[in-house]
Amino acid sequence: MVEPWQDTTLPVHVRAADLLARMTAEEKTAQLSSVWIGAEPAADGATDVAPGQHTYAARSTVLDTLLPHGLGHLTRPFGTVPLEPAEGVARLAELQRTVRAGNRFALPAIAHEECLTGFTAWRATVFPTPLAWGATYDPVLITEMAQAIGRSMRAVGVHQGLAPVLDVVRDPRWGRTEESIGEDPYLVGTIGTAYVRGLEAAGIVATLKHFAGYSASRAARNHAPASLGPRELADVILPPFEMAVRDGGARSVMPAYNDVDGLPAHAHPELLTQLLRDRWQFTGTVVSDYYGVSLLEEAHRIADGQGRAARLALAAGVDVELPAARCLHPADPLPEDLLDRAALRVLTQKCELGLLDPDWEPVAGGAPVDLNPPHMRELARKVAEESVVLLANDSGTLPLGNGLRLAVVGPLADEQAAMLGCYTFPRHVGVHHPELPTGVEVPTLAEALRVEFPDAVFVDDPAAADVCLAVVGDRSGLFGRGSSGEGCDAEDLQLPYGQDALLDEAMTCGPPVVILVLSGRPYALGRWAEKAAAVVQAFFPGQEGGSAVAGVLSGRVGPSGRLPVGVPRGPGGQPAPYLAPPLGRHGFPSTVDPTPLYPFGHGLSYTTFSWSQPLCEAEEFATDGEAALWLTVRNTGERPGTEVVQLYLHDPVGTVARPEVRLVGYARVPLEAGESAEVHATFPADLAAYTGADGRRVVEPGALELRVAASSGHVHHTVPLTLTGPVREVGHERRMWCEMSVK
Amino acid sequence: MVEPWQDTTLPVHVRAADLLARMTAEEKTAQLSSVWIGAEPAADGATDVAPGQHTYAARSTVLDTLLPHGLGHLTRPFGTVPLEPAEGVARLAELQRTVRAGNRFALPAIAHEECLTGFTAWRATVFPTPLAWGATYDPVLITEMAQAIGRSMRAVGVHQGLAPVLDVVRDPRWGRTEESIGEDPYLVGTIGTAYVRGLEAAGIVATLKHFAGYSASRAARNHAPASLGPRELADVILPPFEMAVRDGGARSVMPAYNDVDGLPAHAHPELLTQLLRDRWQFTGTVVSDYYGVSLLEEAHRIADGQGRAARLALAAGVDVELPAARCLHPADPLPEDLLDRAALRVLTQKCELGLLDPDWEPVAGGAPVDLNPPHMRELARKVAEESVVLLANDSGTLPLGNGLRLAVVGPLADEQAAMLGCYTFPRHVGVHHPELPTGVEVPTLAEALRVEFPDAVFVDDPAAADVCLAVVGDRSGLFGRGSSGEGCDAEDLQLPYGQDALLDEAMTCGPPVVILVLSGRPYALGRWAEKAAAVVQAFFPGQEGGSAVAGVLSGRVGPSGRLPVGVPRGPGGQPAPYLAPPLGRHGFPSTVDPTPLYPFGHGLSYTTFSWSQPLCEAEEFATDGEAALWLTVRNTGERPGTEVVQLYLHDPVGTVARPEVRLVGYARVPLEAGESAEVHATFPADLAAYTGADGRRVVEPGALELRVAASSGHVHHTVPLTLTGPVREVGHERRMWCEMSVK
Repeated sequence: MVEPWQDTTLPVHVRAADLLARMTAEEKTAQLSSVWIGAEPAADGATDVAPGQHTYAARSTVLDTLLPHGLGHLTRPFGTVPLEPAEGVARLAELQRTVRAGNRFALPAIAHEECLTGFTAWRATVFPTPLAWGATYDPVLITEMAQAIGRSMRAVGVHQGLAPVLDVVRDPRWGRTEESIGEDPYLVGTIGTAYVRGLEAAGIVATLKHFAGYSASRAARNHAPASLGPRELADVILPPFEMAVRDGGARSVMPAYNDVDGLPAHAHPELLTQLLRDRWQFTGTVVSDYYGVSLLEEAHRIADGQGRAARLALAAGVDVELPAARCLHPADPLPEDLLDRAALRVLTQKCELGLLDPDWEPVAGGAPVDLNPPHMRELARKVAEESVVLLANDSGTLPLGNGLRLAVVGPLADEQAAMLGCYTFPRHVGVHHPELPTGVEVPTLAEALRVEFPDAVFVDDPAAADVCLAVVGDRSGLFGRGSSGEGCDAEDLQLPYGQDALLDEAMTCGPPVVILVLSGRPYALGRWAEKAAAVVQAFFPGQEGGSAVAGVLSGRVGPSGRLPVGVPRGPGGQPAPYLAPPLGRHGFPSTVDPTPLYPFGHGLSYTTFSWSQPLCEAEEFATDGEAALWLTVRNTGERPGTEVVQLYLHDPVGTVARPEVRLVGYARVPLEAGESAEVHATFPADLAAYTGADGRRVVEPGALELRVAASSGHVHHTVPLTLTGPVREVGHERRMWCEMSVK
Repeated sequence: MVEPWQDTTLPVHVRAADLLARMTAEEKTAQLSSVWIGAEPAADGATDVAPGQHTYAARSTVLDTLLPHGLGHLTRPFGTVPLEPAEGVARLAELQRTVRAGNRFALPAIAHEECLTGFTAWRATVFPTPLAWGATYDPVLITEMAQAIGRSMRAVGVHQGLAPVLDVVRDPRWGRTEESIGEDPYLVGTIGTAYVRGLEAAGIVATLKHFAGYSASRAARNHAPASLGPRELADVILPPFEMAVRDGGARSVMPAYNDVDGLPAHAHPELLTQLLRDRWQFTGTVVSDYYGVSLLEEAHRIADGQGRAARLALAAGVDVELPAARCLHPADPLPEDLLDRAALRVLTQKCELGLLDPDWEPVAGGAPVDLNPPHMRELARKVAEESVVLLANDSGTLPLGNGLRLAVVGPLADEQAAMLGCYTFPRHVGVHHPELPTGVEVPTLAEALRVEFPDAVFVDDPAAADVCLAVVGDRSGLFGRGSSGEGCDAEDLQLPYGQDALLDEAMTCGPPVVILVLSGRPYALGRWAEKAAAVVQAFFPGQEGGSAVAGVLSGRVGPSGRLPVGVPRGPGGQPAPYLAPPLGRHGFPSTVDPTPLYPFGHGLSYTTFSWSQPLCEAEEFATDGEAALWLTVRNTGERPGTEVVQLYLHDPVGTVARPEVRLVGYARVPLEAGESAEVHATFPADLAAYTGADGRRVVEPGALELRVAASSGHVHHTVPLTLTGPVREVGHERRMWCEMSVK
């Protein structure tokens, strides 16, 4: 007999509710729990499994305790230790069979994995880090990438991916800057939502993190409290999450570790329930960050005991404790209403994923599994190529000609860690298994250069070279194992590892110096800006990154990336984001001038473009209307190239101090030499909304400026507009996108 | 006939209301205005009067325009240019006669002056900067100092002083750190209120500034926006203002330049009216910061035109536009209710000050005026001596013996600017008159050392010395004229002027090195902490500062200062205040460890002390009660010395993340060798109040710890206490002081 919860013809919420009604409190609690086999009892997010011990038991004592009641999640069944992909499939299947055999409903668990730079598993394609996605200004490509990643995960039995990071960069000293998309909420929202769409289209539950305010931690120290008022939270931090929930269809959210103005996100009902569910109508699951519930007791000290921490988290809106049940345990039972609420959400999601279906079977092992197939490598290459930013090329040294004598200097020139973000498998887990190969080919920049320039002569002595390529930046890593990555915060934005001295020396050698920055955050480059022949920035561009950067140097790849974060002049004076109102942007009345060396949105190409005066349908439009404008961009040079047309909003007068400019639209415009294209933008008045003095989000009548620009610092044309009609309050239904098309 | 407003037997508010009713709108507006003669049209707070042009006209065209309607304030009649004090008195009297002659009520103006480090006038005693007041931990002395300053101002016809600064230091990179009292709200509140009491007792209107949040400006850049939530504002930023209004009787408040979460303080009705007046029952005047109303239009861009800026400011609760009427002008009339409200407050204050009395006369000139008499110099000496902090003395090098060969190195050793804060007359105004003497004697440290050590041999070559005294720190100045002071913000806490290299070199010379820091902010000293024989910190200690520091070196003065701000180990990683909750205080999970080198409250002496176990009346007390505790402190060494007993509160569990510790009481305990004293503390439960998750300020039942400590990092004894009874909401009536006595 098929019970209602097994009946695939019934709606998922009916089935989930039916199943819930049959469960004991212990069974419900088990659905909110997870097991991280192979990682107990490590506490820093990495595994403590000894090198060589790569296959781990499909059972553990923790698992055995939970099994009779069922299990909500399986934590990182692929990504905890290096497993041959086929072996991983088999092991996960075996684990799922063990889980199902343990509980009377034969329910499997949701298998979740990291996927911030691709599927974080051994031998899987390593994509560029999110800061590089931001640099592409190409949401279509990011959706493609995410969909491919999602399909590869779904094909091996994974259900949920713990990505993307939607934290808006507020202080690049933060080690997790590399995991973030940029410093503008519109860029983060559009690129992040594009990623979510791709992942969800592949059937993977996308997890938005970290909700909310993590990137604003004091002095950019990981986990430190965030000083934020409600207006900054509403207008800077939250919009990307709202976009990704509403327009991306994300089905999971992960709270932030830190507190905002004293309130830890894991115990924040206004954030996790009133805002996320009641106002944004989110119906998925909220999964804790790893150990986030424990921190309520141990670090935030708002809970007296583990049981109290679990109750606070569940009451606020957390549904699942990750990476494993620590605060949730049957000895300390939860109030029934909280338990039911969370368990129903988990069961509903399982039902959506097919895990309640009578014919559900784990993905069968046995067949060869390729997690790094050609089409994935091709996508990794495209994203890498579009993400390389040409910051300066004053003397026209780039692209480099043939047959040059090239000196390649710098400790990162021949270093894989300069290509890979901290959430790539090699840097996240592989570092614990140094005897093992990387799993995928990751040419270093030096290696890629030898391939790119077969006719070049590589010399050791910069004085004997025609051009010196000085490679500087970061090694990614976790918790002190690198200069960028989770827990690897910086005291300032000086290049690490003494690389400033290396650049100083390179500048004295004679030949023109091209600075190549491979990093997870922007670094102060002001000291060499006048001396360098050219400057190229890449943000951990992944396994195909060496070839992408080398291709830009040779001219095989036209540089088309744009900065998702400003590059500062000097190392101190942080934070200095570009979103500041006038008093936060300038020097006087302060001796510290935060003006960036290269502003948000900046990036050059090898050709030149002309921008026509934009035309506008009407200079006035209603506070509930939209403005259409268009312009022609022409490639006036002799090489193909891609321009990125950026729209910035400047609002002259409001009820509160607002950013001088913020991004409200952008479009990539690839053009052959001599070719032109018409770029159309439909700017909805809703995008001019901000949270006013009375706390309401409103569109106000009055003057506006749309700045049509090549970067936040390089405005081609200013379009004065006037909003007419009444002040209009806007809510969750508001339009958050400026549609732009290129013809 | 005596009109009611002239009748000194009637209450002041009756008289003020009567006068108001007789006034035209132009006359009311004039009462909200000021004139800064000699400073037009300079905009940076300094005068543009050419050197030598020291006497300025008692009239100006601006004044002439306003005169027929009257005048609210006179801006800095003494402090704008160097005037012989007797000449200043005569000029002010003449000005007042001009003002009175101009209006039909013969009303004089309120004369306001700066007095942050003493009366900011030529030849007036220069006291230590407020950060040095904080280092004394001696509110009784600060009241004495302020009363003496107030009397000297009152005696020459000044009515209002634009001090104290009650901004709690949040990021010492801020140039105005030197003008602030410290990084703990309790220390700032108690010392600041002590200053207010002294000034007000002398009949001078004290002006609390900057209300509120200025010190939290982003990256410590002057005027930059502050990211602050309501809880941090309520528990960290506002308490000193509340204390100084309620317990200090301050009669004026000045809003901050910056915005907090988008809301500029000059247009912030919740702050200036609902909180300040309705809840705190403040009845004085709110005077704008200089050009603060204009900034609403020009920088914050929340006002479309000057008239609108004035209306916004008046509507929020600003009463007087300083330094001169720019946005207020008769051509752009204000709504009558706003005009009446502000004018009534100004007239009431004038009435209180006697300016409406028929027999009022300006202070008569003619007699010699001494603004630097012996009793003032003596007070300046006492404050300076108590403010010097002995940070380290590992090898016992200090105090220095007789007849040593001393090398004194460093660019600040023979520099007056290292003694004087940026609001001293010599640094604020005197720098524009380089041909003029300082006006008071300000021995440099090098000069003071020669007096202090008559038997020493001063040698130039550190290798030939017994001890090397390395003098480093700041030159104070305004807007780029120094390394510390208003507008002189720092990118990090590295010693300025390359003085780090000087210390590096000094450490290699051979003799023991004593580092003497004369500065306006703490600087990173970690690099030399293990190498230096001793470290002494003074914060711009004023005209008697050289002798005070020299006296500490010789042992004539027992060091008794304690740090009002922590001294960091490294220059980056700011902000790192000690008020952070656990996740903000430690290294892991961040590579940046914000632990200070010398924590808040730290300071050594030349003797040793024993601290008995504290005794407690009862370990339990009610949420509306108080806890009495006492302990015995004994000087166990062979020299007299002063210990500062500090009480810190640690609250193990609450509803929000709270500071790990905060100061809740302190007492200076001066003891002869072998002497002991009993220190009593009465800790009111109210001091355990904090703003909880629901936004209410409450005292909660449960466990507490009082840490009886020599500094925030050196706890002698922990006293566990338990609060009993119900959760209790506390408001403006709450007790804000822990009474401590020494017997």
